[in-house]
Amino acid sequence: MPTVDSWLLPEGIEEVLPEEAALIEAARRQLLDLFSSWGYDLVITPHIEYVESLLTGAGHDLELQTFKMVDQLSGRMLGVRADITPQVARIDAHTLGAEGPSRLCYCGSVMHTRPRTLSTARSVIQLGAELYGDASSASDIEIITLMLETLSSCGVSGAHLDIGHVGIYRGLAQAAGLDEKVEQALFDALQRKAVDEVRAIAEPLGQSQSSLAAMLCSLAELSGGVEVLERAHVLLDGAPESVMAALDDLAEIAQTLSRQYPEIPLYFDLGELRGYHYHTGAVFSAYIPGLGQSIAQGGRYDDIGSDFGRARPATGFSTDLRLLVERGKVSAGAERSSAIWAAYANEQGLQREVMKLRREGERVIVALPGQVDADAVEHGCDRILRWQGGAWQVKKLEN
Amino acid sequence: MPTVDSWLLPEGIEEVLPEEAALIEAARRQLLDLFSSWGYDLVITPHIEYVESLLTGAGHDLELQTFKMVDQLSGRMLGVRADITPQVARIDAHTLGAEGPSRLCYCGSVMHTRPRTLSTARSVIQLGAELYGDASSASDIEIITLMLETLSSCGVSGAHLDIGHVGIYRGLAQAAGLDEKVEQALFDALQRKAVDEVRAIAEPLGQSQSSLAAMLCSLAELSGGVEVLERAHVLLDGAPESVMAALDDLAEIAQTLSRQYPEIPLYFDLGELRGYHYHTGAVFSAYIPGLGQSIAQGGRYDDIGSDFGRARPATGFSTDLRLLVERGKVSAGAERSSAIWAAYANEQGLQREVMKLRREGERVIVALPGQVDADAVEHGCDRILRWQGGAWQVKKLEN
Repeated sequence: MPTVDSWLLPEGIEEVLPEEAALIEAARRQLLDLFSSWGYDLVITPHIEYVESLLTGAGHDLELQTFKMVDQLSGRMLGVRADITPQVARIDAHTLGAEGPSRLCYCGSVMHTRPRTLSTARSVIQLGAELYGDASSASDIEIITLMLETLSSCGVSGAHLDIGHVGIYRGLAQAAGLDEKVEQALFDALQRKAVDEVRAIAEPLGQSQSSLAAMLCSLAELSGGVEVLERAHVLLDGAPESVMAALDDLAEIAQTLSRQYPEIPLYFDLGELRGYHYHTGAVFSAYIPGLGQSIAQGGRYDDIGSDFGRARPATGFSTDLRLLVERGKVSAGAERSSAIWAAYANEQGLQREVMKLRREGERVIVALPGQVDADAVEHGCDRILRWQGGAWQVKKLEN
Repeated sequence: MPTVDSWLLPEGIEEVLPEEAALIEAARRQLLDLFSSWGYDLVITPHIEYVESLLTGAGHDLELQTFKMVDQLSGRMLGVRADITPQVARIDAHTLGAEGPSRLCYCGSVMHTRPRTLSTARSVIQLGAELYGDASSASDIEIITLMLETLSSCGVSGAHLDIGHVGIYRGLAQAAGLDEKVEQALFDALQRKAVDEVRAIAEPLGQSQSSLAAMLCSLAELSGGVEVLERAHVLLDGAPESVMAALDDLAEIAQTLSRQYPEIPLYFDLGELRGYHYHTGAVFSAYIPGLGQSIAQGGRYDDIGSDFGRARPATGFSTDLRLLVERGKVSAGAERSSAIWAAYANEQGLQREVMKLRREGERVIVALPGQVDADAVEHGCDRILRWQGGAWQVKKLEN
C-alpha cells in the first residue's frame, strides 16, 4: 500500500547521504582506532533486547524513551535500545567476567521515543568508551582524557569541561536522614538552582542537623572555577567521610587536567546532579560555544553491573558521532574527491587494468552502456583510462 | 525491576564480543573500501521508519518480518527495518534524484520478528551495494562481479553461483493469460520443482496455448550448467520477446563470468523464482559448501523506485557481514595482538611518551592504581615502557 508520502521520514529520524556518510565513516574509524590505541576493545550490542535488560542500572531513567513491542517468539516485551551503556555493562559483568580492569568501547545507533535534548533528533549515533573494575579517580581521569582526545581528534575546538560529583549531595542527604519526599523536593530545587527553595526545604531539618542543612544549601552556590574546591573544603568541613573523599577525587581530577590541558577551562558544579539515579561519583560534560547541549558527557556509575550479577566499579563517556562531525573538522579520505573513468568495453586488458588500479586504492568507475566520456565528470572523475602507446594509461580529464 | 535473568538475550539476538567484533570491524572497513574503489558511495539509513515506507517495493514480502510499534509523536505505525534495500532505493529515487546511473552501498543491522533462514538469527549485519539507473545486463554483471570480489576479499572460497531470471516465467505466464489463482498454483509448484504438478496445472490451458503450456512445464527442468541456456533456446523457441531478451541477458552474464571467474561454477535455474514479487530480471545467489543458505544474494528489481515517485532500473546484492567473517578468513589489525604496558605514575614525561606511542599507532595500556607489571600479560601486552639510560624505552616483556 504505497502512500503519496512513503518517502517521508518520521520527525527527528534522518537518513545520511553520501557526503556526510563519508565523514561519519572517517570519524568512526579514526575514533575506534584512537580507543584501540588506549586499549579499549570494540563490542557490538543488539539493537533490540528484553525491556528488563535495557532498563537496568543506567537504563532506569530510559523507560519513557524506549520504543517497545512484543516478541512473537517469547511473548515478552522487547525494547529498542535508547542507550548502549547498560548493554556494555552487561558484557563486562556477565559475559566477559574479567577479574581485573576491562576497557570496552562501542559505536552504534540508539533511538528515542521523543527528542532527549534541545535538538529534535530521535536517532543518535552513539559512540563511547567504558572502563570497569577500578574505583579510583585514575579511571575517571583516563576516561575524561580520552573524551577530550576524542574531541580534538575530530577537530572540535573551544571546549570547556563541567565537572560535578553526585557523591557529595548523596552523602549529605544520607547523613541528614531525609525521607524520600523531602529528598526528592530538595533534589528538584537543587537541579533548578533555586537557592531560596533549597533553603526553605533544608532549614526545617532541626537544630541537630543544622550544619548539614547549611551544607546542603551551600551546594547550590558551589559552582565556578577550580577555586570552588577550596571553598567547598571550608563550607563542607565536618561533612561525612564520603563527601570529603569525593572532594579529594575532584581535586585530583582538577590537578591532572589543568596540567595536561591548560587551555581547557574547568568548571565545577557541586549541585550538578545529572543522572543522579544511576551515577555514583564524578560526572563530567564537555560543552562548546553555540551548542545548547553537551557535545560529550559521562560519569561514574559503580553499581551498574549488580543487575547482571556482579557489581563492578565503572566509569565511561559517550558522544554523538553526527554531532562531532557537524561541529568538528573531519576530512573524508581523498578517494571520494578523485576518481578514474573507464569506458564500457568488453575487453579483458581493460578489465585487468581497472582491477589493478582499484587494488592500488584508486576509485575507478566503469561506464555503463550508452555512457560517454562526457559523463565522467558527474561521477566525480578527474582522470580517465586511455589506450595509448600500446598500453592502458591514466590521463587527466580535459574539460 | 531487575530480574534474575536480565543478562539473557532474546532468542536469535546476540552480542558480539571483542575478538569477533574486531574481525567484523576489519571486514566492514575492507569491504566499504572495496565498494568505494568501485565508485559506490556509503549511505546510512534509519533503523526505524513509518511501516508504509519500509514495506514498499522490495519490502512487501517483509510485512510479517517487521517489528512494529506506535510513534508517540505522530500516532502512526513505525517499523524496525528488516531490510535496507528499500531505504536505499528511496534515497536514489527521491532524495538524491540523479539523472544518470548512481551507485550506493550500506552496512547496518536489520532485525526480523522470526528467523528468516535455516539459522536462528533474528539480527543480521546487512552489507550491500546497489546500482540504479541502468537496465542493461552490464549492471547485473558489475553487481555480480562486486559480490564475488566481496567474497574473495573476505577469504570466502569454494563459492558457486546460482543464476535465474524471473522475466522468463513472468513473460510466459503473462502470454498464457493465467488468472491469478492458476498463476499462484503454478508458481508454488515451480518453486517446489514439482514437475508433475506443474504439468497438471499447465496442460489444461487448451490447444491454442499448448506451446506455452509446454514451455512453462519445461522451466522446472531447465536447471544445470551453462548448457541449460542452449537447451532453453530450443525449448522456449517462439516464446514472447521478453523471454528471449531474458535468455540473452543470461547468456551475456554467463559469458563474462566464465571468462573472468573460470574457477567459479555457474548453475542456472530458470524455474528459480526467489523474490518473484519484487524482482524483475536476473537473480543470483552465491553458495558455499556446508552452509544451508546462500552467503550472498541479489537481483534486479526495476520497479522499486516507483513507490517513491520515480521508477528506476535497479540491481544490487547483499550479504551478512557476520557470516562472511565466520566463513571467511578475515584478520584484524596487528594492534590487537600486541600492546605496550605503562606503569601507573603521575609523571609528565611518561604521559607524553605514552601519547606519542599511541599517535604512532601503538596500543598502550596504562596501569591503574594497584596494578603491577605482572598484570600486563592479561591485558595482552607483550612489551613495557621502562625508564632506562635517561629515557623512556619500549622493552620486550620477560615472562
